[in-house]
Amino acid sequence: MSASENIKLAEYLFTRLRQLGVQSIFGVPGDYNLRLLDYVVPSGLHWVGNCNELNAAYAADGYARITGASALITTFGVGELSAANGIAGAYGERSPIIHIVGTPPRHQQDSRALMHHTFADGEYKRFVAMAKHITIAQTEITDAATAPERIDWILQQALIHSRPVYLEFPDDMPKVLVSAANLKNPINLPEVPSPTYESAVIARILERIYSAKQPVILVDGESSALRIVDQLDTLIKSTNWPTWTSCWGKGLVNESYPNVYGVYAATFGDKPAQEYFESADLILTFGPQYSDTNSYFSQGIPNPKAAITFKDTTIQIESDIYRDVSPSKVLSQILSTLDSTRTVKATGPPKTFITTDDIKATDPVAQKNFFRLVNSIFRDGDVVLTETGTAAYGGRGFKLPPNTRLFSAVTWLSIGFMLPATLGTSLAKRDQNASTGTRNQAILIIGDGSLQMTAQEMSVMIKKKLDILIIIINNEGYTIERVIHGRKQEYNDVPFWRHREALSYFGADEEHVKNNTFEARTVGELQDVLKDERVTDGKGLRIVEIFMEREDVQEGPLMSVLHKQLAEEEEERNSA
Amino acid sequence: MSASENIKLAEYLFTRLRQLGVQSIFGVPGDYNLRLLDYVVPSGLHWVGNCNELNAAYAADGYARITGASALITTFGVGELSAANGIAGAYGERSPIIHIVGTPPRHQQDSRALMHHTFADGEYKRFVAMAKHITIAQTEITDAATAPERIDWILQQALIHSRPVYLEFPDDMPKVLVSAANLKNPINLPEVPSPTYESAVIARILERIYSAKQPVILVDGESSALRIVDQLDTLIKSTNWPTWTSCWGKGLVNESYPNVYGVYAATFGDKPAQEYFESADLILTFGPQYSDTNSYFSQGIPNPKAAITFKDTTIQIESDIYRDVSPSKVLSQILSTLDSTRTVKATGPPKTFITTDDIKATDPVAQKNFFRLVNSIFRDGDVVLTETGTAAYGGRGFKLPPNTRLFSAVTWLSIGFMLPATLGTSLAKRDQNASTGTRNQAILIIGDGSLQMTAQEMSVMIKKKLDILIIIINNEGYTIERVIHGRKQEYNDVPFWRHREALSYFGADEEHVKNNTFEARTVGELQDVLKDERVTDGKGLRIVEIFMEREDVQEGPLMSVLHKQLAEEEEERNSA
Repeated sequence: MSASENIKLAEYLFTRLRQLGVQSIFGVPGDYNLRLLDYVVPSGLHWVGNCNELNAAYAADGYARITGASALITTFGVGELSAANGIAGAYGERSPIIHIVGTPPRHQQDSRALMHHTFADGEYKRFVAMAKHITIAQTEITDAATAPERIDWILQQALIHSRPVYLEFPDDMPKVLVSAANLKNPINLPEVPSPTYESAVIARILERIYSAKQPVILVDGESSALRIVDQLDTLIKSTNWPTWTSCWGKGLVNESYPNVYGVYAATFGDKPAQEYFESADLILTFGPQYSDTNSYFSQGIPNPKAAITFKDTTIQIESDIYRDVSPSKVLSQILSTLDSTRTVKATGPPKTFITTDDIKATDPVAQKNFFRLVNSIFRDGDVVLTETGTAAYGGRGFKLPPNTRLFSAVTWLSIGFMLPATLGTSLAKRDQNASTGTRNQAILIIGDGSLQMTAQEMSVMIKKKLDILIIIINNEGYTIERVIHGRKQEYNDVPFWRHREALSYFGADEEHVKNNTFEARTVGELQDVLKDERVTDGKGLRIVEIFMEREDVQEGPLMSVLHKQLAEEEEERNSA
Repeated sequence: MSASENIKLAEYLFTRLRQLGVQSIFGVPGDYNLRLLDYVVPSGLHWVGNCNELNAAYAADGYARITGASALITTFGVGELSAANGIAGAYGERSPIIHIVGTPPRHQQDSRALMHHTFADGEYKRFVAMAKHITIAQTEITDAATAPERIDWILQQALIHSRPVYLEFPDDMPKVLVSAANLKNPINLPEVPSPTYESAVIARILERIYSAKQPVILVDGESSALRIVDQLDTLIKSTNWPTWTSCWGKGLVNESYPNVYGVYAATFGDKPAQEYFESADLILTFGPQYSDTNSYFSQGIPNPKAAITFKDTTIQIESDIYRDVSPSKVLSQILSTLDSTRTVKATGPPKTFITTDDIKATDPVAQKNFFRLVNSIFRDGDVVLTETGTAAYGGRGFKLPPNTRLFSAVTWLSIGFMLPATLGTSLAKRDQNASTGTRNQAILIIGDGSLQMTAQEMSVMIKKKLDILIIIINNEGYTIERVIHGRKQEYNDVPFWRHREALSYFGADEEHVKNNTFEARTVGELQDVLKDERVTDGKGLRIVEIFMEREDVQEGPLMSVLHKQLAEEEEERNSA
């Protein structure tokens, strides 16, 4: 492509997106984005028409967490605002969605015309003002001269911060010609110079590494945004040091290594692990996000005296915060100079293994047996998604095969997220594996309350022929809320649905419908289901409905919250 | 209740809501609102647990348009943002929803704790900052001393402006005791003094009324917010002058009066009406909102020289805008002094009537016959809802029985709105009619694309045993978008659903499922369906699926837009 060549603006944008690894675009058509949508498929991209914009945003979030970037196209006002909660979650949990909003044509905006999808008051900047609170950068395209650089800038912001950005694309501009010159240079992260003290920081870290007697590696979920996941794999292998993850970090670390322990659960986990962790003299901590959920009510936060903490642009050693350092650069230099003969051969606490020997076939399916049983069906490369609620808590104990990503409740915890996110991850993996024909299974575990939020997106899974297993925990409502408060309250119930009819209602082929819906009330039934090849290795969407008691929760944080509520109830009875 | 009596804050709020005529509350439980929800039912209110928050907001909007106020309870961050689009629509189309957001307890906010449902950055004011753009007033409750007055103030703002408001209610405050003293005085609209020139304005209007030779009354939808609908009924009856409505005003005026013509459609309507309207020397115009959709691309806007226009706080006569006048007060004085002997006996243009003689039983169901046929089932007191898209355009031509409200596309036009709005209106009517046992039917006409946005709310209709008829126009996608652009584009298609399985999937009793789903492909089949008592007068949720061609639209604005697209296509072919 010669520097003097021109290109239509829509093609410019979509070429850029493809350069970022985006192959599918999520969204919903609307009056102000149709002309832009004309260029999606001709640009070599796959259009995913979602059932609504919130679902589309959730799906885009899931896609970005797998591929490193995603795109969402909505229409002005009605479309973008429906997506707001999904964009906010992507902000909080660092998923770089390029949110492209088709806006009214420039002449209508300039003349403050009283168009539909506005408040009929001539004001066109209300919604970008809202987006400022939930995206890391915003820009509008207004003319051919500045459009390419604005697009490049906004895309780079998404990559730098690993957070969503907001791009206003007027409906009269897809065909506007712009220079294609920039397209020769892909969007890269800017190179940040090393501060003069960087080598001193590295030396100090190495010194701590060599002197450590009881070291720990702790991986949290922002490590993805720091782009250090591969380096962490090397660190974990080369030191062989005891390694834990946060809930969010789980699935970023290969749990088949002998030194990897899974999620660090402090007082909610096993005693030897807690004792080892709490008396560690070095805790190399990567990409932390210390929300109450992700840190077991702060219990999982390392002792600051032992911690060396890598964040976006800082490294903290004890109380010293070194700013403007790149964690990835520092880690890379540490790995290249690390002398393994000088590091301690740390022996971690004994590992616990998942056993199922105590589970009887006649037992009812319950929180205490289900998660151990379902663990058997996960395979290398799968994506496992556990929706906020009992599913996410249960999933913390999984032993994952290598290359298995886990999506769990981190901080945003918007119920309804995981079902469209499953669509997004599944499509992302298929896009990535298109040439290899690798197995591509996504397994979603979700409660019936969460499912009702975004259920219609199953029809898109079916339409797109994605290989997805959905296991629905039917406990007649929001059990997570019952545990927190209102154990017997009607407001925690949900309407009754016949989940086993979902495949048919949402349009699966008649033949597929017949063979791909399962249910289990007892362990024996569940074991049969989990042996069925249609479940473990099937094609298309399959649904397993399992039944649990309304107040059934796992040992751990939820049980502790439930006990607190029971104690409060007792207290009220006594004071009455 | 003595002035010294105290009451729990949650009870204070819910007592106030009941005083406003709110009997049911919409929303979804979440971690930060459960303790508030404990008081809903004990306060004598009905809790509607919706499937998700957007649906809840839409339903609350529908409720408020019937009763004059509604309440929505969501949880911080995840819940409230999901509702944003629904709140925005209520702002634009003037529906006073009290949006109550359960926020984290005060100690967590004060300490900037890194709680879930935040961005784990200690910032708690991000979402209220967003709400400022889509609500007319916001307040937070922080202490017992100021809480009652803040609640009173925010409720009054909702009533004054007939727009949504935003109330932050911390999770630790439902039980806080506050003074009940204010509750003796219901929330009223503030009395605004008449400006000195008010009598001159009235005199000028009366003079124009008495001198008018070809007068028109034009009623638009903001007349509800102006609280003049009953006065307009008197005006229309007492003058007997030719009366039209905008699309939005339809259903606020009794169409059985001989002088009421229905929607004024300018060049898209019939010629004699257009000629009469355009040469009118007086157009009394009430509550206008001149968005492109509601005004037939501005064609329906009256000639300013003929118009006298009543808005919230202004009356415009020719180019003179009189500010700070109350349209309701002025109208009331005009009605009390109006001397009917001095007003012209205006003879409007000939009326057109809906005939069905040209429709043959063997015809396929189509836009050009369906709306005329379905009109026969509407009864006095029904609510008829026509979703944005072809349904709303078709519904503009209905002849409505007295007391029949019509919900149609106005300005916000968020597809997916009408289904939950149907739930809201149906419940509002049932709440209002609880003592009388009056027939309470809501009839929704909706396309398959819109339906997929919010379909799960059917399960709440079923759970709440509401008498609702849903007629689904299955034309395999977003026909309204096909008409605007992308006639043959894949992005305007939607996934295939088996709509006739909806009742069963969404949990209706088996007996009900068997007898309450219908379909029609031909006029003959449709006529049979429309004669069936289960359809016309049935109980619970009933579904009729009808089939239309993918590009079938009515004569009028949509056909004109379609022709424009066809011409563009032709032009592109010729230039290629």
